[in-house]
Amino acid sequence: MMEESVKEFIDKVASSSPTPGGGSIAALAGAMAGSLAEMVCNLTIGKKKYADVEEDMKILRKKCEGIRKRFMELVDEDAAAFDKVMEAFKKKEGIQNALKLAAEVPLDTARESISLLHLLKEIAEKGNKNSISDAGVAALMAQASFNSAILNVRINLKEMEDMDYRKRKENEMAEMKDEMENGFDEVMEIVERWL
Amino acid sequence: MMEESVKEFIDKVASSSPTPGGGSIAALAGAMAGSLAEMVCNLTIGKKKYADVEEDMKILRKKCEGIRKRFMELVDEDAAAFDKVMEAFKKKEGIQNALKLAAEVPLDTARESISLLHLLKEIAEKGNKNSISDAGVAALMAQASFNSAILNVRINLKEMEDMDYRKRKENEMAEMKDEMENGFDEVMEIVERWL
Repeated sequence: MMEESVKEFIDKVASSSPTPGGGSIAALAGAMAGSLAEMVCNLTIGKKKYADVEEDMKILRKKCEGIRKRFMELVDEDAAAFDKVMEAFKKKEGIQNALKLAAEVPLDTARESISLLHLLKEIAEKGNKNSISDAGVAALMAQASFNSAILNVRINLKEMEDMDYRKRKENEMAEMKDEMENGFDEVMEIVERWL
Repeated sequence: MMEESVKEFIDKVASSSPTPGGGSIAALAGAMAGSLAEMVCNLTIGKKKYADVEEDMKILRKKCEGIRKRFMELVDEDAAAFDKVMEAFKKKEGIQNALKLAAEVPLDTARESISLLHLLKEIAEKGNKNSISDAGVAALMAQASFNSAILNVRINLKEMEDMDYRKRKENEMAEMKDEMENGFDEVMEIVERWL
């Protein structure tokens, strides 16, 4: 869906088709966060004032680019996984496996959001302070991406019969939530210091 | 920028040009929230089970569409306003006026986010409960849109010399923040009840 125009994509979300829906939007918010993080790196690299962090910023930029690309794949993967759930319900066949996949995709989105928040801490700390609000927006988008992804995991877990799997995933989400909140708070503390 | 592909837009954000930046992303997050809200309306309209709220949902859909379109304009308006700030700094002329415009555009984004959260409360309450996670993601995106917009207002206020204007805008933002948080909490309470 990344080849469609922004307008077309947004129209498609709004339409009466359930995909792309919240799970794809969660991943796209992550991609937007990743691209802003990259921008802050790009606005730091080559600036005399920030020469001593230039090499660090190049490494961070590369890592952000990888995460952003993964998020863009997840936009499509989420829609595909949800389409499979609907198909399974229609056929009354393979529902449980389809639900597991539809829970695993947003879990990946949530994991990438956490990785990005860790990078953002270093970017906010070392990067160009004229772009500090962009680092803040990137953190807000990564947080929204995480929390949106978690809602999508939870709605898919709801109808899952494998209670062991559910319990395991719920514990995993609780741990991830703490890590995300800590990462987010660390970035925003730096942002507030410079704003 | 709405005519560019999603990939092109995200690449442009990531580039070493400061626009589109955090302000445009704030508005785009709002547009994504609006389109998800519309989708929940569309997935409710025409369903037998929800026949008694059909007319309400049609009105809500129309309102969401208007907000979404406004958000899409704000993506471009924010980039244009920030380009003017940079031009003014280069020319050392008209800086204060350019900063005011660059503060007013994200204030508009923040206002639209609040309007959307109010609509989302009714949508979550009356809409199709199979799409409750989408209503939740819409609320999370509206919240991120609001908070991102506010960071952009604040960075533009920082260098403003008109202290009356600054004070007025700071009070306005504090009031808006309360309204946004209340609106957000109301939506998420309904979402949690059904998830």
